[in-house]
Amino acid sequence: MTDALAELTVPSRLLLGPGPSNVHPRVYQAMMTPVIGYLDPAFIQLMDDTQRPLRTVFRTENDMTMPVSGTGTCGMEAAIYNIVEPGDTVVVCQNGYFGTRMADMAKRCGAEVSLVEAEWGRIIEPDQVRQALKAAGRVKAVMIVHGETSTGILQPLEEISRIAHEHGALFLVDAVTSLAGCELLIDEWGIDVCYSGTQKCLSAPPGMSPITLSAQAMEVIAKRKEPVRSWYVDMTMLGRYWGGGTTRMYHHTPPMTMLYALREGLRIVLAEGLEPRFARHQRAARALAAGLEAMGLVLHAQEGYRLPPLTTVRVPESVDDMKLRQGLLQGHNIEVGGGIAALQGQVLRIGLMGYNATAGNVLALLLALETELAKQGFRVEPGAGVAAAARALAAQA
Amino acid sequence: MTDALAELTVPSRLLLGPGPSNVHPRVYQAMMTPVIGYLDPAFIQLMDDTQRPLRTVFRTENDMTMPVSGTGTCGMEAAIYNIVEPGDTVVVCQNGYFGTRMADMAKRCGAEVSLVEAEWGRIIEPDQVRQALKAAGRVKAVMIVHGETSTGILQPLEEISRIAHEHGALFLVDAVTSLAGCELLIDEWGIDVCYSGTQKCLSAPPGMSPITLSAQAMEVIAKRKEPVRSWYVDMTMLGRYWGGGTTRMYHHTPPMTMLYALREGLRIVLAEGLEPRFARHQRAARALAAGLEAMGLVLHAQEGYRLPPLTTVRVPESVDDMKLRQGLLQGHNIEVGGGIAALQGQVLRIGLMGYNATAGNVLALLLALETELAKQGFRVEPGAGVAAAARALAAQA
Repeated sequence: MTDALAELTVPSRLLLGPGPSNVHPRVYQAMMTPVIGYLDPAFIQLMDDTQRPLRTVFRTENDMTMPVSGTGTCGMEAAIYNIVEPGDTVVVCQNGYFGTRMADMAKRCGAEVSLVEAEWGRIIEPDQVRQALKAAGRVKAVMIVHGETSTGILQPLEEISRIAHEHGALFLVDAVTSLAGCELLIDEWGIDVCYSGTQKCLSAPPGMSPITLSAQAMEVIAKRKEPVRSWYVDMTMLGRYWGGGTTRMYHHTPPMTMLYALREGLRIVLAEGLEPRFARHQRAARALAAGLEAMGLVLHAQEGYRLPPLTTVRVPESVDDMKLRQGLLQGHNIEVGGGIAALQGQVLRIGLMGYNATAGNVLALLLALETELAKQGFRVEPGAGVAAAARALAAQA
Repeated sequence: MTDALAELTVPSRLLLGPGPSNVHPRVYQAMMTPVIGYLDPAFIQLMDDTQRPLRTVFRTENDMTMPVSGTGTCGMEAAIYNIVEPGDTVVVCQNGYFGTRMADMAKRCGAEVSLVEAEWGRIIEPDQVRQALKAAGRVKAVMIVHGETSTGILQPLEEISRIAHEHGALFLVDAVTSLAGCELLIDEWGIDVCYSGTQKCLSAPPGMSPITLSAQAMEVIAKRKEPVRSWYVDMTMLGRYWGGGTTRMYHHTPPMTMLYALREGLRIVLAEGLEPRFARHQRAARALAAGLEAMGLVLHAQEGYRLPPLTTVRVPESVDDMKLRQGLLQGHNIEVGGGIAALQGQVLRIGLMGYNATAGNVLALLLALETELAKQGFRVEPGAGVAAAARALAAQA
């Protein structure tokens, strides 16, 4: 062999972008747990130990609550592909990148897609959904993103859920960025299908996608005319594997190490408690917002609907977005995200997720940002951002 | 929170089943590498560092060589879904569990499936494929499993590949259990699409699926009439992400930790060298076979076509298969697999894969097996299996 590989060396970054976020140290430890077989009695215990806390975090009693063996996008595919089949009409809310993706997936399942659109950075209004449903006739599902990572919007869900159900449609929600970072009440809000990811507010590496489906959703799936277009995420088959009892039907070899990571991430969430955890995310996000505004920057997302785990801020006209982010990465080891698609070059996306939603990270980022903005001639009163954030943190303490 | 989770405790097993196999200790270490963002320059380096050794291990020059972000089944879905579309006819060779799965997936893509069948434990004969192709008319692809984990068969591929190409069909191969454990020459044998898994002979945890596609396969994909039914494993989109250059188009957040694991697994393979690694697998499998036969047991797979990483052996009539495997697990911490589907209760499946393909593991298993067989009244001359294996090892040294 001539092409020997060098030892893996990777810089240690502070990941304050749209995800992945930094992994909790205890999650790394859990990943050292030896891999076992998928029929081992210890594995059956592990499945239960993952499903039970997932139900707690999703605030649901749904039997069908489990992680899918892929990243958040795989969870999106699991959610949409199981529900939608050719000939169906679905309403997809599109006010950011991930709504667009949902629509594309629904089309690949053979659905007619009715789009409800809003500006990238504003919420979808319930009335828009009501109108779309009226116009569309029989609708299989309404799909929406709870926390839009591309825009920084936290979408209110309750009223839209009610509207969807009044119309006889299922309600399907993307909670990749919101789960375990913001209030999300699956059962109380009437959400039928919801998926998330491990690499955001759960502080585990990317690689699994928690999903939950209501009994109504499973009934709809049971009545499908065609098999689910994906084999890998066919929930009926996955249900026979994850669905309790002693007869577990082999479907695929689960990514054991990622399950250990998810279990440990959930364990940390349960120990902190959901309410304190949401409050911590809000505190950090408010301090960040105060700091950014004190530096003369403008927040992008609609006021009153900002997503605590992910803040979008406008890049000043005079500033080169790419250079700014490279400066943060190379000079300070801090990663933040840039805008994508419709917001390319226009915003920074700053994540404060799970383990990373701390006062210290807010202050470190603001200071680094001040330094890098100054390098591009965007002058800020020295320390103004940090001071404002500190005051906001103190006021909330 | 009332449902706090206990600390994760999992027994340390010797995994001599059909996979997952034990993870190399250095792979565990690599998984402690901090997660980074998917746009970090260090990540671009990591992608290259994974794709280059994958090409070496697959023995291919294919540009499109990369890991898919899911387990082996996800790789199977990636392979089949990208090639097959409604109206296509495909020939699927079915002499075990995974051939059956391939056929099911091809049907979900809307294909007409022509089956070529053989007994579970015998190879597919080239003439069978020739007949099927003649009968089927225009065929998009011939699909076959290289190492059938359900039966222990190592399928010869060269002649069938030639037959498929003569007929104008692509040749698609499942190498989940054979990659890095048995000779597999993608380019020389004319394999157009091939996928594998990380948890077998690569000695990493389950969670990623290496895949490679020839230029011809990519041309066929480029000419599709319909979009690929799966969004998650659409190779055209994945190619824009993994396909070199500086403009990497975001598709999904890759499971970073699993990439670190795969990279380290590949690094270990390159350091050992492919030929010595294959020889090690053969040596261990021959010793195991000698030991099993010396104990009066009967190997299941057709002679001359046995899969070194996975040996199938008949369970004696008088022996309760489930009790036997439970005895091995509980009394000796050794996992072996049972038969599935057509072979349920009839065979043991013994894996000696990657890190686990050692003389020591062969001897430990044979001794434990002797003990457990004796408990069920199946008497073996004490030490006969171990002695025969030791002789076989010595003869091959």
